[in-house]
Amino acid sequence: MGGDKAPGEILAGARRAREELGIDVLLVGPNDGSLGDLDGLELLPASEVIAMGEDPARSVRAKKDSSLVRCAEAVRDGRASAMVSAGNTGATMASALLRMGRLPGVARPAIATPLPVPGRGGTPTILIDAGANAECQSEWLVQFGQMAAAYVTARYGIADPAVALLSNGEEATKGSPLVKATHERFAAGAGVRFVGNVEGRDLLAGQADVVVTDGFTGNVALKALEGSLHAFMSILGAAISSSPEAKAAGDVLLPVLLPYAAEVDPEETGGALLLGVDGVCVISHGSSSARAIFNALRVAHELAEADLVGQVRAAVAPQPSSLPG
Amino acid sequence: MGGDKAPGEILAGARRAREELGIDVLLVGPNDGSLGDLDGLELLPASEVIAMGEDPARSVRAKKDSSLVRCAEAVRDGRASAMVSAGNTGATMASALLRMGRLPGVARPAIATPLPVPGRGGTPTILIDAGANAECQSEWLVQFGQMAAAYVTARYGIADPAVALLSNGEEATKGSPLVKATHERFAAGAGVRFVGNVEGRDLLAGQADVVVTDGFTGNVALKALEGSLHAFMSILGAAISSSPEAKAAGDVLLPVLLPYAAEVDPEETGGALLLGVDGVCVISHGSSSARAIFNALRVAHELAEADLVGQVRAAVAPQPSSLPG
Repeated sequence: MGGDKAPGEILAGARRAREELGIDVLLVGPNDGSLGDLDGLELLPASEVIAMGEDPARSVRAKKDSSLVRCAEAVRDGRASAMVSAGNTGATMASALLRMGRLPGVARPAIATPLPVPGRGGTPTILIDAGANAECQSEWLVQFGQMAAAYVTARYGIADPAVALLSNGEEATKGSPLVKATHERFAAGAGVRFVGNVEGRDLLAGQADVVVTDGFTGNVALKALEGSLHAFMSILGAAISSSPEAKAAGDVLLPVLLPYAAEVDPEETGGALLLGVDGVCVISHGSSSARAIFNALRVAHELAEADLVGQVRAAVAPQPSSLPG
Repeated sequence: MGGDKAPGEILAGARRAREELGIDVLLVGPNDGSLGDLDGLELLPASEVIAMGEDPARSVRAKKDSSLVRCAEAVRDGRASAMVSAGNTGATMASALLRMGRLPGVARPAIATPLPVPGRGGTPTILIDAGANAECQSEWLVQFGQMAAAYVTARYGIADPAVALLSNGEEATKGSPLVKATHERFAAGAGVRFVGNVEGRDLLAGQADVVVTDGFTGNVALKALEGSLHAFMSILGAAISSSPEAKAAGDVLLPVLLPYAAEVDPEETGGALLLGVDGVCVISHGSSSARAIFNALRVAHELAEADLVGQVRAAVAPQPSSLPG
């Protein structure tokens, strides 16, 4: 029931994931026939829906029979290996947190979002935290880096991922007090390969496998990138539609642009991950099409197979080098 | 002597500003003949140079005969109406702050950077603080909004500019503690037309004339936009050079793109302003060409004529509505 295009596109994506990848998709939603023909997909009934604008914590507490809450419970109870939602992001996080629970030792779960890197062959840079925690402590940021490194290894097979810290300058002395304290903790040894600070302009440049930041800065940076892409596309569109000659040139150029654009297409990346909870939780964009849902289900399936949760659990276990002294 | 292309491009920009606009440009730099033919432009001698990588505060204290320090002194002493520098940004700020001084009541000077808004006829959105203060208090952010509103009025003739606050959501309840406290102060009345929170994706969308943030977030957001533009240009370049047909299409399309690109070209905007010091201080990008310097001198001249400093001084004077109670 989640996202702007539910349930039509969600169902279409689920069907495709079963047909093309053989993924056993369990739908969660109303059992009143309103979903139409389920095409043989199994349905876990849930009579309530948490809408996009609702307060996350309150709605999760109040709507115990909502599709989001039932979905998280299905993972908790072992009926499902992973959850995927294109619905209310805050409520998705709250459902996962309250029903699956935090992994032992995790201070705060965080959102890991893939940033497409042009020319990197489809391997993105992971931005964490992309918006779960507006206010953070340096210990949490270090843990975000540990969790995202485990995720990069589980998903992309990168053995010793490069972890960077987002700042307003490359020097260790640059940054807010939070960034400086986090830099010190990473530099002192946190069980990951810390490569220092990167700046906003480096987010799409591919120097690091993981870029760590607080959820406020991460949200602003991610949305600035989205807004910039949107502005650029509108400029390109205006130029192409300005004359018949430009239109003809656009007809030649756009198909050539497609493979490059696919590399940076958020619908291909499979969505963001909520890391630190005791289950795989994929957060898709609210505007997700069937293709985005298909890719999110693919990623969720891969990460369940790769034991993402076990990898994250091990990554946040106390490291000898991070003990005092 | 500032920037990657000094002194050649700086001199060329200065010459053009005098020839085309009649601006009386005072150069500040070495009097040893190394600048070549000054073409009749006046030179204020300065024997030292602060390089791009030097520590700002230390170098300004140590190099009393540097071009940056002498330049700020020329404004302080009334020999010049404004300063323009493409050099070390931190040292430019430190020179202006230490030699011109802060305006009465200003807690911290801040950098106001124009963000180009496609389709807005060349009127940008002003981002403040774009990097001067990595750690801020809510009172300062309110003052940044007041100063930038005065700047928008002085420069673009917008009578009652819309001032927004950068956050991770549009709701007043969203944001870091700093953002929430700042929102409250703006909403309580701060002498500017406060239009609420905007998100990172709104930075280039033109809803607000001014977007207020702390210098850490502002720096990250600004550089994320730069990085995104760079990534998009490299994708477009790769597509165009992928085949002879694509090359031919690019030859048709690129000239059509130019007027749109010019609207978002940072070299056209005339650089950033340091607001809150007792003088006009334009900070140009380190990569500034002659065209960027020409535009920076044009803007500096306009802002001196429009009495920017007097406008900012009046804007930060205590407002009746911002007094306690």
